[in-house]
Amino acid sequence: MNINHNFQNVADSYLFSTIAKKVAEYQQENPKADIIRLGIGDVTMPLVPAVIEALHGAVDEMGKKETFHGYGPEQGYGFLKEALKGYYAQRGIELDGDEIFVSDGAKSDVGNILNLFSQDNTVLVPDPVYPVYVDTNIMDGRKILYMNANADNGFLPLPDPAVKADLIYLCSPNNPTGAVYSHAQLKQWVDYANENHAVILFDAAYEAFVGDKSLPRSIFEIDGARTCAIEFCSLSKTAGFTGTRCGYTVVPFDLESDGVKLNKMWLRRQTTKFNGVPYIVQKGAAAVFSDEGQKQIHQVIGYYKQNAKVIADALKELGVWFTGGEHSPYIWLQCPNGMASWDFFDLLLKEGNVVGTPGAGFGKNGEGFFRLTAFNDLENTRKAVERIKKVLSSL
Amino acid sequence: MNINHNFQNVADSYLFSTIAKKVAEYQQENPKADIIRLGIGDVTMPLVPAVIEALHGAVDEMGKKETFHGYGPEQGYGFLKEALKGYYAQRGIELDGDEIFVSDGAKSDVGNILNLFSQDNTVLVPDPVYPVYVDTNIMDGRKILYMNANADNGFLPLPDPAVKADLIYLCSPNNPTGAVYSHAQLKQWVDYANENHAVILFDAAYEAFVGDKSLPRSIFEIDGARTCAIEFCSLSKTAGFTGTRCGYTVVPFDLESDGVKLNKMWLRRQTTKFNGVPYIVQKGAAAVFSDEGQKQIHQVIGYYKQNAKVIADALKELGVWFTGGEHSPYIWLQCPNGMASWDFFDLLLKEGNVVGTPGAGFGKNGEGFFRLTAFNDLENTRKAVERIKKVLSSL
Repeated sequence: MNINHNFQNVADSYLFSTIAKKVAEYQQENPKADIIRLGIGDVTMPLVPAVIEALHGAVDEMGKKETFHGYGPEQGYGFLKEALKGYYAQRGIELDGDEIFVSDGAKSDVGNILNLFSQDNTVLVPDPVYPVYVDTNIMDGRKILYMNANADNGFLPLPDPAVKADLIYLCSPNNPTGAVYSHAQLKQWVDYANENHAVILFDAAYEAFVGDKSLPRSIFEIDGARTCAIEFCSLSKTAGFTGTRCGYTVVPFDLESDGVKLNKMWLRRQTTKFNGVPYIVQKGAAAVFSDEGQKQIHQVIGYYKQNAKVIADALKELGVWFTGGEHSPYIWLQCPNGMASWDFFDLLLKEGNVVGTPGAGFGKNGEGFFRLTAFNDLENTRKAVERIKKVLSSL
Repeated sequence: MNINHNFQNVADSYLFSTIAKKVAEYQQENPKADIIRLGIGDVTMPLVPAVIEALHGAVDEMGKKETFHGYGPEQGYGFLKEALKGYYAQRGIELDGDEIFVSDGAKSDVGNILNLFSQDNTVLVPDPVYPVYVDTNIMDGRKILYMNANADNGFLPLPDPAVKADLIYLCSPNNPTGAVYSHAQLKQWVDYANENHAVILFDAAYEAFVGDKSLPRSIFEIDGARTCAIEFCSLSKTAGFTGTRCGYTVVPFDLESDGVKLNKMWLRRQTTKFNGVPYIVQKGAAAVFSDEGQKQIHQVIGYYKQNAKVIADALKELGVWFTGGEHSPYIWLQCPNGMASWDFFDLLLKEGNVVGTPGAGFGKNGEGFFRLTAFNDLENTRKAVERIKKVLSSL
């Protein structure tokens, strides 16, 4: 038996495990330190009442023979796909129910979608980038090209006609930088993909944070995207589902290669290697899209955006360069005095007891930058900001 | 962009979709027909009270900030891994908690585990077989060898030293045949695997149905298995979790190739392409392993086994050859008068309004055989058996 040797090319440890280890070590040495975490992008607010009510109702159904649910459709129940279809329709995007696949989260689908593509495809990823895009392709042995995202292009790289790529990862609003592509910018990517017979893997996990109606929240708002894009979305950040697990992926019927529909391939992949999301969770997810659910989750999103503003205002006051924080829960700032990312991480942990994410963990262009998240509570965020101010003033 | 062309070698439609379509067509033509389903292996009894209580408790936790759970460990919460460790310990199997990976079901893990292996490995599967073992390997382009399972070997094939294979699929109690390997038989497989540096992918999804204490319920009851086996298990049939989704996979530390631990590879795969099972579901799963939970689920399993006995007794009375039904929810019977599987399927559907699964759907050695499941309720099972008797007597 031979193992898949590509695994040996993946870094041993995942960025967030390294951070968790560093923080745990510091906490052990300083048991009294009151550490505030603005590092990993995990939410802290509970599920909203409409979701809790739906979850309880579904649990009750599972306890009675007449209303019990066994195997469901692998691609999701009709009631949830209809709700998602309606959610897209609000933005003028018409989808067929069979173009929507309910899943246990964007991370799974972003990894598993690679089953559909040949290993000889060339992959284009921005740098800095969510590490999963890179690691999953290294595991398959694909060639990876990087495009520079930096302060010069506002961390929003555009296509270079000289570069030929088959699979292109775009994330907007961006993790880690919080930057958001405009319609015109995404149109350039869609045109490039259609001209080069490439596929855009569009990560829309943070779409619900976009407040400006003129900014796109889905790649399918762009003309031509139906022949070149797959979109991944998730309720993790939208509705606090990081521990409840539900997302969805849109594979349009018009996306084809060699006369084969990728929608049909994904259906075959999912029916063969996946058994659907728990009925209970799907009922909870559907409640997110009810009028009551939407009102409640937007209150929570508003709360996180208020946190982001607290951070952004402080950085402005300090004169620190940053992107994000307006249509995104992430703030991407330049480390003070040309400091390296991991040095600033150590400084902030030791002098301020605040945890962030070193930009270098997202790629070489992340060096010298730092990510803060708005997902803690307001009290902690305010406290963290005071500490950051103090650390920066002491430099 | 090139697609993964191996997908074109996979049959368009999954066995159970074909059956569902045939049944739906018949029902449409005969709207008054009272069809009884003993086809797909889906449970019909509700989740037990201990699980329902745990699920409600976990939903309440998710609704309060102090007890809310965001991202959990991808490989499962400690409380559930400890419960599973204890479950194995009851059978004298000592596992480390980090050898156990909680997942959303055996189907996902059986498919995804192939990420760890090179595409040039040769796969050995019994025929008849659960279609997922075959389809997932076709999608990767691996060479598949079949071993004959038939009435001569009691549908329990043993290793052939002349055949060299790298990945070996074993399922015991078996789906579809209900046959169960003995310790001595599994020892032959473990010895073969260790001698040939092969890996046994052991599907133990039906272990809870084994009543005879002398029969193995885990591959890890066999000496030498820790260096050559991975075990997949699920709460789907054990505790009615087909629509609730929780399983677990054991990858022992001692399983290595080229000095690389497969446990470490699987951890890297899961942390990169999976985000764990919902906290709520893991709390429900842990309740399955409480004293109360075990008592309650074994009542349900006993109920299904009673159904199996009703079917088995009728077949004995009719003089029909069959395996299974004693330590398994499946009964695998020979079609009457040398009839082909799909012909018998049509006959039973039309003349008896009973749905089963044609053996031919599981491989060429399944031709002439037929699978019935014990997962309906007692009343329907009794009714179905009377109808089967009538159809067979009329031949």
